[in-house]
Amino acid sequence: MAKTQRWLLTDVSADLWTERFHVSSGDRADVAFPHSWFISKRTLRGGKRDGVELLEVHNGVLTLSVLPTRGMGLWRGEYRGWRLGWQAPVRGPVHPQWVQLLDRGGLGWLDGFDEWICRCGLHSNGPPGHDPQPNEFLPLHGRIANQPAHYLAVEVQSEPPFLLSVTGRVQESTLFFSHLELRSTFRTPLGANWFEIEDEIINLSTKSAELELLYHCNFGPPFLENGSRVVAPIRELAPRNARAAEGIDNWDKYLGPTPGFVEQVYFADLATNAVGMTLALLHNAAQDKGVVLRWLKAQLPHFIVWKNTAAVEDGYVTGLEPATNLPNFKAFEREQGRVISLPPHGQYRAVLRIEVLDRRESVQAVLGEIAQLTPTPAVVHRQPHPTWCQPAS
Amino acid sequence: MAKTQRWLLTDVSADLWTERFHVSSGDRADVAFPHSWFISKRTLRGGKRDGVELLEVHNGVLTLSVLPTRGMGLWRGEYRGWRLGWQAPVRGPVHPQWVQLLDRGGLGWLDGFDEWICRCGLHSNGPPGHDPQPNEFLPLHGRIANQPAHYLAVEVQSEPPFLLSVTGRVQESTLFFSHLELRSTFRTPLGANWFEIEDEIINLSTKSAELELLYHCNFGPPFLENGSRVVAPIRELAPRNARAAEGIDNWDKYLGPTPGFVEQVYFADLATNAVGMTLALLHNAAQDKGVVLRWLKAQLPHFIVWKNTAAVEDGYVTGLEPATNLPNFKAFEREQGRVISLPPHGQYRAVLRIEVLDRRESVQAVLGEIAQLTPTPAVVHRQPHPTWCQPAS
Amino acid sequence: MAKTQRWLLTDVSADLWTERFHVSSGDRADVAFPHSWFISKRTLRGGKRDGVELLEVHNGVLTLSVLPTRGMGLWRGEYRGWRLGWQAPVRGPVHPQWVQLLDRGGLGWLDGFDEWICRCGLHSNGPPGHDPQPNEFLPLHGRIANQPAHYLAVEVQSEPPFLLSVTGRVQESTLFFSHLELRSTFRTPLGANWFEIEDEIINLSTKSAELELLYHCNFGPPFLENGSRVVAPIRELAPRNARAAEGIDNWDKYLGPTPGFVEQVYFADLATNAVGMTLALLHNAAQDKGVVLRWLKAQLPHFIVWKNTAAVEDGYVTGLEPATNLPNFKAFEREQGRVISLPPHGQYRAVLRIEVLDRRESVQAVLGEIAQLTPTPAVVHRQPHPTWCQPAS
Repeated sequence: MAKTQRWLLTDVSADLWTERFHVSSGDRADVAFPHSWFISKRTLRGGKRDGVELLEVHNGVLTLSVLPTRGMGLWRGEYRGWRLGWQAPVRGPVHPQWVQLLDRGGLGWLDGFDEWICRCGLHSNGPPGHDPQPNEFLPLHGRIANQPAHYLAVEVQSEPPFLLSVTGRVQESTLFFSHLELRSTFRTPLGANWFEIEDEIINLSTKSAELELLYHCNFGPPFLENGSRVVAPIRELAPRNARAAEGIDNWDKYLGPTPGFVEQVYFADLATNAVGMTLALLHNAAQDKGVVLRWLKAQLPHFIVWKNTAAVEDGYVTGLEPATNLPNFKAFEREQGRVISLPPHGQYRAVLRIEVLDRRESVQAVLGEIAQLTPTPAVVHRQPHPTWCQPAS
Repeated sequence: MAKTQRWLLTDVSADLWTERFHVSSGDRADVAFPHSWFISKRTLRGGKRDGVELLEVHNGVLTLSVLPTRGMGLWRGEYRGWRLGWQAPVRGPVHPQWVQLLDRGGLGWLDGFDEWICRCGLHSNGPPGHDPQPNEFLPLHGRIANQPAHYLAVEVQSEPPFLLSVTGRVQESTLFFSHLELRSTFRTPLGANWFEIEDEIINLSTKSAELELLYHCNFGPPFLENGSRVVAPIRELAPRNARAAEGIDNWDKYLGPTPGFVEQVYFADLATNAVGMTLALLHNAAQDKGVVLRWLKAQLPHFIVWKNTAAVEDGYVTGLEPATNLPNFKAFEREQGRVISLPPHGQYRAVLRIEVLDRRESVQAVLGEIAQLTPTPAVVHRQPHPTWCQPAS
Repeated sequence: MAKTQRWLLTDVSADLWTERFHVSSGDRADVAFPHSWFISKRTLRGGKRDGVELLEVHNGVLTLSVLPTRGMGLWRGEYRGWRLGWQAPVRGPVHPQWVQLLDRGGLGWLDGFDEWICRCGLHSNGPPGHDPQPNEFLPLHGRIANQPAHYLAVEVQSEPPFLLSVTGRVQESTLFFSHLELRSTFRTPLGANWFEIEDEIINLSTKSAELELLYHCNFGPPFLENGSRVVAPIRELAPRNARAAEGIDNWDKYLGPTPGFVEQVYFADLATNAVGMTLALLHNAAQDKGVVLRWLKAQLPHFIVWKNTAAVEDGYVTGLEPATNLPNFKAFEREQGRVISLPPHGQYRAVLRIEVLDRRESVQAVLGEIAQLTPTPAVVHRQPHPTWCQPAS
């Protein structure tokens, strides 16, 4: 039998769609898998989740809940009983039919936002507003998170490293507007404490296209708590605005749930290792739980920290966000040269690896790795940086 | 066996959803129910109703059609063959996916409006507009009628008074915006000509929240006809605007279907009985059919009469509307002190009882009850009242 | 047995909806049909098509794919292996839940546009904008293409000419706004190279109503290619704007797929035959493939040619568009007297016949027919016509 088994679950161009799918280690008695695993797909029902497709991948220790209906976002995950993700006020996952992007002055995206990891893009991200250049209104964080996959496939490798993978394709395509396709693959080996997101964005048009892409990776407890810290090889860091500047001395430290806390955002330039990789770590107070993001800085040159340590019921969360641009309004990013221009039929590739750490030694090892990369002293601006931060209007 | 049987039909937090449900008196041969009853749930298909969940409660004489998909509104009812509700131009019930609240200059709510009883609220109601204080655009009559229930349960009591009840929970919750939950119960005893709506609105946030709540109770034939009348213990009443002022002498009398009729709205302050209850009656010309609304004035201090006796095909209807506020733009209501402020985790409770009268004697009895409460003379303003009615802009 | 068999598939007023339907010549062994045929209905799943109802009619040589969910539009067709329609950038058909008409400055309609034939109307068509007269914002090309049918029926005639037909009803009805119903029938005889769309628009209100209606009939390869031509009995023709004026000398000739091509639109007044019929032909370079549209000019007095010979991946397409009005902003059309006013309960009827030509002789015959009708010389304006074309703002 082939070393990789593959199932095509959705392909609208062949009018192919699979209502339910379940495959697990138990289905392959012929293979000595080192862990029990499953991949499962179904459609959620009831409330705002009605009609949302959920694809779950369990590698033996780590579970990923993928949302084809929400632009191949990751709804949440679980690692040895710990939740990966956060608790948003809205009860998600939210079918895009409940999200009207223009609502709330262009902030309608928030009505659907409860994912662990979602992409902001592809044509634009950042705050809503009117972009004079192509004369269009850009809604908060773009459209990709509220577009459904038109293609979905899964693969299981029956030999080491026993990779489980999921591939989805999502379009942002409208006559006279952008014609972009996201081809996204989630990949994790059996028993691993990590997985990888490999994204390719393809400009399907004969016209050049702009691209903005940000990975909004959101964490609550048990990784976020009073005394948690975000650590990264900072070369330079600045607060986004006056509110963030207030907290600059503790930009990397987290409070517990704090009713009335107003969000603070920091923009950073990170150092890399010899092959251009960088990373960021969020660890808990006891330094025995952590999550690490790793990526190639050439692909995602910017890093954003979103601190929203409000009350639990108001969304206690921090976002660690590698991105192609800073989440300012697109016109400002264009001026600063941070909007990617994809040529006709051009492609852009980004890979993000996420690890979960469950021991003090693992956290220490990553802290050591970051310390080695971090220049001394890091430049920490006490006020917004003029070319990084759009002045308040 | 327990004296109350309970079925949980939807609970998205347990990923529980019931496609079809039917229970009736015939299922309980062990109980001597005084009337045949049923409770039934299914999903409507086709047209704009596709995907709308419908829960029907029949107590032997009265049927209620509840819409979990539309904020636990009441689509329509039936009492001994008489329709409770009205015929809107749109063929409902309308799934919220067809309603874009911002459309038609913020009047998009009308695209989904065909219910017998729907709530206007919770964060706001009244006309659309830009509220400068929190800097947001408020769509007509708020969002609650276009939000789906995330929780639904029914109960049947197998001893007197043999209550049938339905409970649903609906949220208006978005990160950085309101985080309110409506917990609504409909309750009717077997064989009764009445039912009760008991609503609790809970502020789930640690921040205080504003609340506006109006019960838009709409009636057409056979209760509404030429010669019908609305009767209530009026202490003071005023027309909303110049158009309503034109009809002030006949504010309580109804025309038959009148092509070209332009709506008229009246705002009223009602007297109460010794325990603070008030009521309103709509009766037909012969005074042998009527509907009565009863409520505690402390919970719903304002009463609005909406007269829209247009042609049948254009929506021949009157609304009797107990409310926490007058349906002016929220900023005006705030100035007048009529917007409720819910403290962190605060609650607000409102109970509305609706009775159907099918005999001349019953109508006479309620007319007598109202006459006793009504001060003489009632103050009827011929022009809009400056603190009740927002000046036309 | 009856000479016509009829199936009612959807009627929301009877709460009737049919999940799947299939009937074919094989089901009627008692009838000697001259061709194999079928009529089939199902619901598409996956991507943006999820929930779209598709009704297919196959007359032996011609297949029509009707979309009840998209206002009884025609998604695409097939004739002897040739595709009728075009390839839009979006992967359709698109359920209206993904279309927010106000988006993209009122151009949200484009997010759902991939049909072969769709109607623009009914309350308005043309570009988006604010109509001061009734004080409302009109989205691009109106609402009808994004409204679902509430009624659907099919008929099969078991004697010559063995007509297959489909009837659907769609409403544009909202309290205080328009209350219009489209009753649409598609009709084709077995083995025919043609079909007919017969539409009746009914004003269900007691108030008069405005009507604009345009048939957006879109063709790509194999009818559209380098050297294709559109031919019609032109009396007078004008470019819509400066961009169209650039191409006036070749207004009737088509380029192959041309990356960067910017759309050009021409407005025309056509001559008719003795009974008031007019027609338009699109043929390929070799003049051996063509499509013909035929209609009564009194019903659809205006004809529009939309040339969008961009790259294939950007939507290589031409639109041949008979209409009641020119697709300018409605306020301009009203000034020019081109908006229809339907009296209370008034009706408007339009029939459009579409033929597919598969032989050189057939194309020649239609060219001859058109030549006979065409006055010499036709008036071809080199610049926009002041009463036809709204000045650029």
